[in-house]
Amino acid sequence: MPLPLGYPQPLEELIRSLRRLPGIGARTAERLALALLEWPEADLQALGQSLSTLRARLHPCTQCGNLADTPLCLICANPQRQTELICVVETAAQIPVIERCGSFRGLYHVLGGRLAPLDHRGPEQLRLAELHQRLAAGNVREVILATSSDVEGEATAAYLAMDLQRPGLIISRIASGVPVGADIGFADPATIAIALRARRNLG
Amino acid sequence: MPLPLGYPQPLEELIRSLRRLPGIGARTAERLALALLEWPEADLQALGQSLSTLRARLHPCTQCGNLADTPLCLICANPQRQTELICVVETAAQIPVIERCGSFRGLYHVLGGRLAPLDHRGPEQLRLAELHQRLAAGNVREVILATSSDVEGEATAAYLAMDLQRPGLIISRIASGVPVGADIGFADPATIAIALRARRNLG
Repeated sequence: MPLPLGYPQPLEELIRSLRRLPGIGARTAERLALALLEWPEADLQALGQSLSTLRARLHPCTQCGNLADTPLCLICANPQRQTELICVVETAAQIPVIERCGSFRGLYHVLGGRLAPLDHRGPEQLRLAELHQRLAAGNVREVILATSSDVEGEATAAYLAMDLQRPGLIISRIASGVPVGADIGFADPATIAIALRARRNLG
Repeated sequence: MPLPLGYPQPLEELIRSLRRLPGIGARTAERLALALLEWPEADLQALGQSLSTLRARLHPCTQCGNLADTPLCLICANPQRQTELICVVETAAQIPVIERCGSFRGLYHVLGGRLAPLDHRGPEQLRLAELHQRLAAGNVREVILATSSDVEGEATAAYLAMDLQRPGLIISRIASGVPVGADIGFADPATIAIALRARRNLG
């Protein structure tokens, strides 16, 4: 039972809820709650409503598993996207990160996790049947594996590279290396090792 | 119109709302919204409900103006508090800060602001009539002025010191000086000047 802060019950409840958010400590939760109290009544209602109905209004895209408020997500529904290119990611939250680079015009497929034998997460918990279906349907030329470049992400990519194999399909993996703009001095040894191994010939 | 982040409408709305909170930038709002999406449905509903009903469930204490969910706030309703001591603060949010020091056992009075002639805030916008009423009612022995120690706070305290004067009533002002635990090297010149002027004789 946390120490009461001396606020009336409704405010204490709100502060306790806000503290559960990542990166929000006791003082910040208190500051946020007091700031919310200053909001116009209508805005507070709107935020409350938006939280209460969030899950009901969002569901996975029926094709790729991205977050959507329509049957198909905004990306799958866009006729200008290249349907012969599928980028496989772990979670829907990773899609906006890739979208913001502006250079990928294909579609996505959300795995809904990654292989983690120690946490009893095997291939049957990933959205793999749906991916096989999309590949069977036809015109996909290349699958880009964009799982994270940590141990579990690499293991998942390695598994997928075998599992998805079919004649004529290119399976690729996003590059690992030193982040753009980063000082080599801050890179960890594993990143340096991979950046050296994947070096490009300049001339 | 802010750049869309590529999330479905309900999530974009939530992110835009969260960005309005103090200290929450674009990336943090996004991170918080995605974290909220992972919450159990019931918790999300509870937080939404708690925000929607916050203002309806909270109102000023009928005696001191503190935040309350009962007619009298927790402090005014506590029979163990010293009713002959009233600490005057600018806002209800300052009360928990004073409560946490643990050494004040009197009551409070919330002004609901401070004098700010440039913003057209005069004495008539403060909860002064209520304070005069409490003083007239009888047993108050001392009023402690705990407005902020900036220009407007000092001006408000000076005004109150004159306005509240009545025979037998002690009017005091909290001390200004170098914060406890602070390095003198980081104190501003105005604080040092006040700390020097208010120096105590040690023997």
